[in-house]
Amino acid sequence: MPVGTLASVKGVPQATLEELGAHIILGNTYHLYLRPGVETVRRMGGLHGFMSWRRAILTDSGGFQVFSLNELRKVSEEGVTFRSHLDGSSHFFSPEISMEAQIGLGADIIMAFDECTEFPADRTRARASMEMTARWAARSKKYLEDHKHEVPWNAASSCGYVGTSAPLCAAERSSRAAPASPRSPGLPKAAVPTQAFSRQTVSPPSPPTQSPPTQSLFGIIQGGMDRDLREESAERTIAIGFPGYAIGGLSVGEPRDLTREIVESTLEHLPSDKPRYLMGVGTPEEIVEYACLGVDMMDCVLPTRAARHGLLFTSEGKVSIKQARYAQDPAPLDPNCGCQVCQRYSRAYLRHLYASNEVLAQVLNTIHNLSFYLDTMRRVRHSISLGEESRFLSSVRSRPKP
Amino acid sequence: MPVGTLASVKGVPQATLEELGAHIILGNTYHLYLRPGVETVRRMGGLHGFMSWRRAILTDSGGFQVFSLNELRKVSEEGVTFRSHLDGSSHFFSPEISMEAQIGLGADIIMAFDECTEFPADRTRARASMEMTARWAARSKKYLEDHKHEVPWNAASSCGYVGTSAPLCAAERSSRAAPASPRSPGLPKAAVPTQAFSRQTVSPPSPPTQSPPTQSLFGIIQGGMDRDLREESAERTIAIGFPGYAIGGLSVGEPRDLTREIVESTLEHLPSDKPRYLMGVGTPEEIVEYACLGVDMMDCVLPTRAARHGLLFTSEGKVSIKQARYAQDPAPLDPNCGCQVCQRYSRAYLRHLYASNEVLAQVLNTIHNLSFYLDTMRRVRHSISLGEESRFLSSVRSRPKP
Repeated sequence: MPVGTLASVKGVPQATLEELGAHIILGNTYHLYLRPGVETVRRMGGLHGFMSWRRAILTDSGGFQVFSLNELRKVSEEGVTFRSHLDGSSHFFSPEISMEAQIGLGADIIMAFDECTEFPADRTRARASMEMTARWAARSKKYLEDHKHEVPWNAASSCGYVGTSAPLCAAERSSRAAPASPRSPGLPKAAVPTQAFSRQTVSPPSPPTQSPPTQSLFGIIQGGMDRDLREESAERTIAIGFPGYAIGGLSVGEPRDLTREIVESTLEHLPSDKPRYLMGVGTPEEIVEYACLGVDMMDCVLPTRAARHGLLFTSEGKVSIKQARYAQDPAPLDPNCGCQVCQRYSRAYLRHLYASNEVLAQVLNTIHNLSFYLDTMRRVRHSISLGEESRFLSSVRSRPKP
Repeated sequence: MPVGTLASVKGVPQATLEELGAHIILGNTYHLYLRPGVETVRRMGGLHGFMSWRRAILTDSGGFQVFSLNELRKVSEEGVTFRSHLDGSSHFFSPEISMEAQIGLGADIIMAFDECTEFPADRTRARASMEMTARWAARSKKYLEDHKHEVPWNAASSCGYVGTSAPLCAAERSSRAAPASPRSPGLPKAAVPTQAFSRQTVSPPSPPTQSPPTQSLFGIIQGGMDRDLREESAERTIAIGFPGYAIGGLSVGEPRDLTREIVESTLEHLPSDKPRYLMGVGTPEEIVEYACLGVDMMDCVLPTRAARHGLLFTSEGKVSIKQARYAQDPAPLDPNCGCQVCQRYSRAYLRHLYASNEVLAQVLNTIHNLSFYLDTMRRVRHSISLGEESRFLSSVRSRPKP
């Protein structure tokens, strides 16, 4: 899932994201809560209307972002007091407040409010954090059940759309209407279809026997780097019951071997007929590896953030486009890539744009990196459907690393 | 002509410029000479190859840019010594050096090296500057005649292209191959077709009776704000003989009424069967007015630079999108605009992107402003072809100015 922190995947128009084949993007509740504010987004029909994005959206709970503020936060059983990174103003997030915000933002998939355990943490600390996350998960679920009808997909949803974008998306709505079937273990399914617009096509109103579409709330597994605590976290979270489960608290500074070990052991305890979402990873090699372990969903700022720093992922390894060696290189960035950037521009031009601090550098670099990531995942899905995960994985691992 | 100073119209991919209907863009020789350097561009087949742009390109001579450096320059009969705004390094531009650079950059239309007279300037100063510009124009023409074969459209041109962009442009090449017919006075013709690729389609080599395509060098009229000096400048420049003529030295701080007066009086002395190019203007209202006076070509950073500062041009007047009044405005930026931005996004979203300093703000704002300008010029051409210039001009003048 490309990350669109502030209702924008930095530098990339939504039409380009559609062309790239992004079927779900992620928004950050903490950032959107501060700017432009949940109420503004809600009035525009939620994030779908506000940013004119008809495909699926996932929002995080704000928990990880608040966790990242370090000195600026204070945690209690009730929730977290924190200071805005923008102006230092004081705010409070609880499971209920996070849910209220995520309902107002109206994403298709929303996340339970959790406490991301820092690394390193001793067992006592990791247990306490995991137990509080479980209690917060139950409170998150309860709040959503009581307030799920408040999602802004109805009355307000039409006002956020302008012009003729609606007809463009009608085909998408119908093509995504087919119910998702349960998956075999290790077989990722396509992103959850957005529910944000299905009501628009229901006229007259659905009969009472059919539930109106609601947001899907995922629970989050914590437990630090302790396999037993992870198992207990999984059991407790499954006992509460969610339509999908996320593995949180990884990629927080621990060695990659440990990440892999915890991912692998935690996956054993998660139901294979529900989406399994590994939060905040990773490199192209890592996402292939985790997908082959059975992870269905991942998000990471790496492709977009690295692009803004001139670090580009290619089938031949990483390219730091700022290097003088590319100044007169007429070759495409990645000869094996079919994206619009590799089809049209040379390394020399991309290097010039970056060296000259041209905004187009950020735009084109981001388009390429997202294309590379989305293409990687398409090939992962294809390999899995052919039963050739291991062969594909080894081909990715053997890539040159310039 | 949208301005693409550093071989990029800031923030806008070339494919989007094509969709917007930009048939010619402008590059700045001074900036490209400093970064990435003429030799790099030349090796990539000129600007067309370097930036992968198959439509027409015009480069300025560097004269105006150097003029803008003020304290950093020193003018003599031979040329101008100046210091780079980037690193303070010393450089020298003469008519010959400007031509050499512009031949290396390989634009379709290049400009004679002129001295832009400052405002205000007394008559003695304006005459001296105009006379030197005329001598420099002759030197510019002489240099191009001796070196026109050095344009990098041949051997080197193919290396700048990558992937499958070539087939996309084949249709354009053929559609632009029809010879442009002489225009009636006041009737702008389409941008000069690019010659940069015609040789690729000539195989075997053209027979000796057919001249190979060359760059078109335009002369520049100076003379300050003095109508008589402008007339004399026009006569001298026409006597040298160029395929097009530009009016320079305006929009340098003088009142707009004076600009109009000088434009109108100078146009009387320029041949109506050659392109007449007014450099560095203007607002949407001004470009309509000048086009109705008989100007065929204009360039200005206003649409792109204003966009980056959140100032947007619409059929209902100017919109400063940063204003809080737009924070929850679900309407499109311009209800009468068919561009991709107005068709998809709300003012509320554009305001959020700008207020949050998101790069997408710059991208979308620039796309809209360019669309508005190019659409305005399309309507000007249509009005002129219908003989309704005056009615169209008055409708533009009567636009609300919020």
